[in-house]
Amino acid sequence: MNVISNKWIGQRTIRPDGADKVTGRAAYAADTNMPGMIWGKVLRSPHAHAKILAIDTSKAEKLPGVKAVVTAKDVVEFPLDKSVMLGIQDMRWMCRNVMAREKALFHGHPVAAVAAISEEIAAEACKLIEVQYEVLPHVIEIDDALKPDAPILHDFLQFDGKPSNIAGKLEHKLGDIEEGFAKADVIIERSFDTRPVHQGYIEPHACLVSVSGDGKATIWSSSQGQFMVRAMTALLTGIPQSDIRAIPAEIGGGFGGKTIIYLEPVAVLLSKKSGRPVKMAMSREEVFRASGPTSGSKSTVKIGATKDGKIVAGQGTFYLQAGALPGSPIRGAAGCAFAPYDIPNVLSTGFDVVSNRSKVAAYRAPGAPIGAYAVECVLDEVAEALKMDPLEFRLKNAARQGTKAAHGPVYPVIGFVDTIEAALAHPHYQAPLGQFQGRGVASGFWFNAGGESSAQVNITEDGNVVVTTGHPDIGGSRASIANITAELLGIDYKRVSVLIGDTATIGYSNLTGGSRVLFASAMVVTQSTEKVVKTLCERAAKIWKIDPDAVVWEDGEARPAGENAGKFPALSLAQIAAKASETGGPIGAGVQLNTTGAEGGFATHVCDVEVDPDLGIVRVVRYTSFQDVGRAVHPSYVEGQMQGGAAQGIGWALSEEYLYDKNGKVDNASFLDYRMPVCSDLPMLDTVMIEVPNPKHPQGVRGVGEVPLVPPLAAVANAVANALGKRFYSLPMSPPRIAEAMDG
Amino acid sequence: MNVISNKWIGQRTIRPDGADKVTGRAAYAADTNMPGMIWGKVLRSPHAHAKILAIDTSKAEKLPGVKAVVTAKDVVEFPLDKSVMLGIQDMRWMCRNVMAREKALFHGHPVAAVAAISEEIAAEACKLIEVQYEVLPHVIEIDDALKPDAPILHDFLQFDGKPSNIAGKLEHKLGDIEEGFAKADVIIERSFDTRPVHQGYIEPHACLVSVSGDGKATIWSSSQGQFMVRAMTALLTGIPQSDIRAIPAEIGGGFGGKTIIYLEPVAVLLSKKSGRPVKMAMSREEVFRASGPTSGSKSTVKIGATKDGKIVAGQGTFYLQAGALPGSPIRGAAGCAFAPYDIPNVLSTGFDVVSNRSKVAAYRAPGAPIGAYAVECVLDEVAEALKMDPLEFRLKNAARQGTKAAHGPVYPVIGFVDTIEAALAHPHYQAPLGQFQGRGVASGFWFNAGGESSAQVNITEDGNVVVTTGHPDIGGSRASIANITAELLGIDYKRVSVLIGDTATIGYSNLTGGSRVLFASAMVVTQSTEKVVKTLCERAAKIWKIDPDAVVWEDGEARPAGENAGKFPALSLAQIAAKASETGGPIGAGVQLNTTGAEGGFATHVCDVEVDPDLGIVRVVRYTSFQDVGRAVHPSYVEGQMQGGAAQGIGWALSEEYLYDKNGKVDNASFLDYRMPVCSDLPMLDTVMIEVPNPKHPQGVRGVGEVPLVPPLAAVANAVANALGKRFYSLPMSPPRIAEAMDG
Repeated sequence: MNVISNKWIGQRTIRPDGADKVTGRAAYAADTNMPGMIWGKVLRSPHAHAKILAIDTSKAEKLPGVKAVVTAKDVVEFPLDKSVMLGIQDMRWMCRNVMAREKALFHGHPVAAVAAISEEIAAEACKLIEVQYEVLPHVIEIDDALKPDAPILHDFLQFDGKPSNIAGKLEHKLGDIEEGFAKADVIIERSFDTRPVHQGYIEPHACLVSVSGDGKATIWSSSQGQFMVRAMTALLTGIPQSDIRAIPAEIGGGFGGKTIIYLEPVAVLLSKKSGRPVKMAMSREEVFRASGPTSGSKSTVKIGATKDGKIVAGQGTFYLQAGALPGSPIRGAAGCAFAPYDIPNVLSTGFDVVSNRSKVAAYRAPGAPIGAYAVECVLDEVAEALKMDPLEFRLKNAARQGTKAAHGPVYPVIGFVDTIEAALAHPHYQAPLGQFQGRGVASGFWFNAGGESSAQVNITEDGNVVVTTGHPDIGGSRASIANITAELLGIDYKRVSVLIGDTATIGYSNLTGGSRVLFASAMVVTQSTEKVVKTLCERAAKIWKIDPDAVVWEDGEARPAGENAGKFPALSLAQIAAKASETGGPIGAGVQLNTTGAEGGFATHVCDVEVDPDLGIVRVVRYTSFQDVGRAVHPSYVEGQMQGGAAQGIGWALSEEYLYDKNGKVDNASFLDYRMPVCSDLPMLDTVMIEVPNPKHPQGVRGVGEVPLVPPLAAVANAVANALGKRFYSLPMSPPRIAEAMDG
Repeated sequence: MNVISNKWIGQRTIRPDGADKVTGRAAYAADTNMPGMIWGKVLRSPHAHAKILAIDTSKAEKLPGVKAVVTAKDVVEFPLDKSVMLGIQDMRWMCRNVMAREKALFHGHPVAAVAAISEEIAAEACKLIEVQYEVLPHVIEIDDALKPDAPILHDFLQFDGKPSNIAGKLEHKLGDIEEGFAKADVIIERSFDTRPVHQGYIEPHACLVSVSGDGKATIWSSSQGQFMVRAMTALLTGIPQSDIRAIPAEIGGGFGGKTIIYLEPVAVLLSKKSGRPVKMAMSREEVFRASGPTSGSKSTVKIGATKDGKIVAGQGTFYLQAGALPGSPIRGAAGCAFAPYDIPNVLSTGFDVVSNRSKVAAYRAPGAPIGAYAVECVLDEVAEALKMDPLEFRLKNAARQGTKAAHGPVYPVIGFVDTIEAALAHPHYQAPLGQFQGRGVASGFWFNAGGESSAQVNITEDGNVVVTTGHPDIGGSRASIANITAELLGIDYKRVSVLIGDTATIGYSNLTGGSRVLFASAMVVTQSTEKVVKTLCERAAKIWKIDPDAVVWEDGEARPAGENAGKFPALSLAQIAAKASETGGPIGAGVQLNTTGAEGGFATHVCDVEVDPDLGIVRVVRYTSFQDVGRAVHPSYVEGQMQGGAAQGIGWALSEEYLYDKNGKVDNASFLDYRMPVCSDLPMLDTVMIEVPNPKHPQGVRGVGEVPLVPPLAAVANAVANALGKRFYSLPMSPPRIAEAMDG
C-alpha cells in the first residue's frame, strides 16, 4: 500500500461544508436568484397512458404575466429508431421523459411548461393549456405488463419477434448451469418481489437558468454532475456545450436520482423564449410522481449446493421495472446478485420491463439490492437445509483473490472474506436474542467505477492551497481531498480549501455516481499535487542555485539533500510561494484522466429485529455493517455512508412503497404517506470498517458509497424469518402484511 | 512575426459580452444578492484632517436592525515603520485608506462602518456613531503642502532629514545633464500644473460578501483583479487566501481605479461579525470623495536642442499629489516623459507629495500624461524657436530600435517613427484650418507590462472549446482570446467560449492593468492551446494506431502525415472529442507563467480645436490618433481603446477638475458638476492603427490600452496655443480660464 503516512489520511477532520449547512448558509439550487427572474411551471399529464392529439397553448400565452410556453415541439427530438447514448442514458428516452412527445406515458408526465412573472400566474397558465388526449389502457405492475394482452407502451419495442413491454435483456453466464444443479445435494428455488422505492433526497429538483440574447446559457442546479447537466441540456436544446455554463449548487441529496435531469432543458427553452432568467423547482409531490424512483422487481432465484456446503450452481431471473421508458438497472441486479461468491456455474438474467410509471432513475447501487435480496434470502434457506451457520456458509463460498465472477472480472485483492470473519468474531453475532427477536445476515457487492476526472491544485501567494475538482460532493469528497492534499504536501489540512468547479472552470469530470468520486478525484488530485511538489522543489533549487534533483520535499518544506544537505535552511510553502513571481510565475498544476482500477466493494451486514406480534410492526433493534472500505480517508464520512445505506435499506425492506390508484396515479406522493424511516424508527447503526487497500489506487481507495445499500433488504428479511419462523418473499414487510401473516 | 494566419486574428468578431450588456443582463457587482443579505454603510470623516481621539459605537449597535459595526480596530494594522508591499501597494497605507486609524486624513475618509437590515437603518446608525475628533489644519495643494510651515500629514515621513509632506523621490538619469545643456543652441524651460481628475468609471465600487460560520469568505465584486481582491482582503482581515473566494463580476469601467479595494475588507469584517451576507455599494458622491482620482501635479521641464534640431538635453521635475497617503505615480510621470525620444542627456525627477485629499489610484498610464503634457508642450516651443515643423522635429529625435531610454531599457523593434510618419502623411495634418482654429500634435509612451497569468483550455465532449483566464475583461480580452484560440485550432471563433475564472478555479493571474492582459493571457492561452493540439494529434494517432509524430493539425482537423498521408480520413475536433474517454480521458491543458517581453507602446496624436472667443469654450473639431498597436487581434477593441483614451485626455485637458471648498471638502462631487466630456462634446475620434508586431510575443501583441491617454493633454494644449497664439501652462483649459485670458 502506497499511503505515505497517516497524519491526515484517516483523520476525522472538520468538514468544509459543515458550517454552511448547519447555519443555513449553504446555497442549494433554489437559493440563487437573478434580477428579472421569472418562474417556470410544468403541466403534467392527468392520465397514466394517453395519446397526445393536440396541444393548444394560445390561451395560456395570452394570460397577462406569461412570458413563454414550451411543449415537446421545442425540445430536440431524437428519433425512436436510432439510439444516441450519453453515458448510460439513451437520448431517445431522455427527450421523451423531459417532455411527452407522442404520448403521455405516466400520470405526471410533463406535457408543457410555462414561465410567468409569478409562480401563481404560471400555475394558472398551465390550467389554460388545452391538451387533447386519447386515453389508452394503462399498465402498472410487471406481471400485468408481461401478459399477452397487456397494453403495449411502445409499438417499436419488440421482444421474441413481437411487440412487448420487455425493453431489454441481459445475461451473465459462467460454467454450465444444468451440470451445476446436477451436482447439487440441496436445491432451493424461490420467487420474490420488491416495490419501487424513491431515493428520498431532501432537496427537490430545482434550477435557475439564464439564457442571454446571444444564446449563451448559465445553469445553476443541484445535480450529481454539472457536466452531465451541460451535455444533456446541450443535446435536448441544440445549444453547443461551450455556450452552456453549468454551475453546481450545493446538493441536498441525490443517491443516484440526480444523475439525470428533468427541469434544466425546459428552463433553458423558457429562458430563451422569454429573454428572462427562469427559476423552476419541483414540489415534493412532483418529485414523487415524476422523478426517480428505483425499479420494483419480480425475481426467481435457484441455488444448489453439495452436502459439504459448497455452492455449485446459482440461477437468477430478475424482471425490473423501467417505468415508462426503457432503462432499468438490470446490470446491477443480474451482475451483483451472485458476485460475492465463488460459484462455478451461474446463469443470471435481467429483463427490462416498461409500464406506465415514472421513468426510474439510478438509486445507490442501482439494481444490486434487488439481486442481493433474492440471492441472500435463498442462501439462508440453503444454509438452513444444510444445517450450517449462515455466515460460515457464506465464508465457505466467499469470493477471494482469483475468483472468476459471472459478470466478468477475476478478482484482485478483495476484502470480502474479511467482512464475514469480522462479523463472525463480533460480539453482535453472539449476543443473545429476546422474545420475538430474530437475527439475519446478508452480504453484498457493488462494482464501483473509475472514469473521467479533472483536478487543479494551486498554491496561493500566501502559501496556502486551493484544490478544484469537477464532481458535486455528496459523500465527503471535499473533506477527503483536503486530507489527501494535506498529507501529500505535509501541511495542516486547514490550509487546503477544496472547491467544486463549474463546467467552465474545470476539466471534464464524469458525474458523481458509481462510488467513483473519491477513487477518481483522489487520483487526479494526487498527480496534480505531485506535480506541484516537483515545481516547489524546482523553485527552491532556483533560489538556492542548486540542482532540482538535490531538493527533497519533507514535512511541508523543501530541503536541500544529498551533498547539499543542511547547506541552506529549509524553505516553507509560504516562503517559496512568496517568491513564485521571480522564480517562474504562479505555482499550480492540473491533471485530467480517464481513471481505471476501481475494484469492487463488499460488505456483510448483521441485523436484529423485534416483531410486535399484535401490530405487525418490525423494529430493527441492532444493526452492524462490516465493509471492506479500501482506505477510509475520512472515517466519519465512510461510517456515514455505511449508516445511510443501512437506513435506506431498512426503509426499503420494511415500510417504503409506491401505492397506485386504479387510474395509475400515485396515491401516496408525500413524505407523510410514503413512509421513510426517521430517526426514531432506527437504533444506532453500528459500523465496522475493514481496510483492504485497493492496490491500484495511490491511497488504496475503494468506492464505499453504494455497497451499504446492497445487503440490508436480505439482512432484514432473514432476521424477520428468524424471528417469526416464517419467511416473507415480498417487500416491504410492512405492518399490515406482517399482521396478516401472523393472523394466518 | 509568428502569426500563423489571419482567419480570425485581426477580425472584428462579435463580442461575447455584447448581448448581455446591451440587454441589461450582465451581472455587475451590485446585481448579486443572497438570502439573508444585509446592507453595509460607511461613516466618513467630515474633516479634511483630524486626530481621532475616540469612537463610541454603542448607540449605533443598539439601534434595532443593526447587525454589526466595525472600526479600524477590526482591520489588521500594518505598523508605520515597516513596509509590506502587495504589488505596488504598501499595506501600511492601504490599511489606513480602508479605515482611518490614528487620523482622518481627508474629507470622506472612512471612520467606521455599519451593517443593518436596510440601507436606511445602516445610514441612521452611522449618524449615531460618536467620533471625537481633534481638528487639525489641512492642506490641499502641492505648493501649500511644500511650504516650510505646512501642516504635516505624517510625522514619520522625513525628507532631507526633516518632517515633510514629500513621501518619496525617484530619479532617472542618462548622460550628463549639465554638459547636455551646454551644447544646446536653444533652451526652453516652462512650468505646468494639472488638476486631479477622476477615472470616471460608470459603475461605482460595490461588493457582496458572505463569510460563513467557519470563517470562509466569498466576495463578489467588480475590480481589475480578483486575485488582488483576495490578497488585499486577506492581508487586511487576517483570513488566509485559501479561505477567500473572490469572484469577479462584470466590470463597468475601471481605468486603473479598480486596482485597489475600498469596500471588500470592510464588508468581510461586517459579514464575519453579523453572520450575514453583506452588500455595500458606494454612491457617486462617495466615489468622487473617497476613491481614485489620479494626481494633480506641478512640473518644470527644460529642453535644449542644437540649431539643426537635435535635442541634447531634457530635464523634468514632477511633483505629483499622492492624496492623503503616499503613492503617486511618479514612475509614470518621470519615466515616460522623455521616453519617446533619443536624448543623450536626461534628468527626470519625480516627487510624491501627500496632502489632505483622497488617496490617488492608478488612472490609465498612471502619471505618464502628466509628464508628456509638460515635455510635449515644451517640445513645441523648441520646434517653434527652431522654426521646425513639430512632427518633423519629433521625427528627427524619435526613439528607434537601439535607443537607450533614461528609465532603463534599450528599445527593441518599436513603431514610434511609424506613428509620426503616418501622421505626417495623413490628410488630417495637411487639412486647412478655419478661423479660431488651431492644430496641435503630441506623442506619448507607456511601459506596458507582462507578469503572471494563467489559462486553461478545455475541449468539451461535443468538440467545442472553453477557455478560462484569470483577468477581468475591461478592454476586450475575451473577444481577442476567442480569435486567437480559434486561429490556433483552425475552427470558427463562435465555437470558443472565453470566461473569467474566480480565484478558486483558475491559477494566479495578476491584475488587469499596465496594458498587460492580452499580452500575457494570449501567451498562456497560446501555450495551453498548443498543448491541446498536441494531445489532439496524440489521440488521433491512437485511433489510427500510428505514431503521434505522423499526425499534423490543419484547419481544425487531425490529418495523417508523412508516409501515412491520406491513409485515414481526417478527424475533426468533434470526432476526437467524442472518443476522448476511450483514448485517455478529457482533453484540456493549463499553463501558468510569469510572462516577460512586453515592450513599450508609442502613439502620436493630431488634434484640431476651435475656440469660441466670447464664451472661452474650446471644442475639439478633429482628432486622429496614430498608434503602434503591435498586432490588432480585435481591431474594434483596439480602436475603442484609442478613442477612449483620447476622450479621457480631452476631458483632462479642457474640463475636468476637482474643486475644494475652504474646509477641504470636494465641492463638485457629482457628474453634474464634475464635467467629463459626453458624446455631444466630441467629434468622431479617428484612429490609425500601425502594426509593428512585438517580436517577443506569439501573436505580436503590444499593450494598447494606456498609451492613448498619454498624448492628448499636450495635443489639445498645443492646438489651443496654435489657435490663440497664446499658451496655457495650466489644465484644465476651461471656459472661465480661456475667457479670462482672451479678455486679458
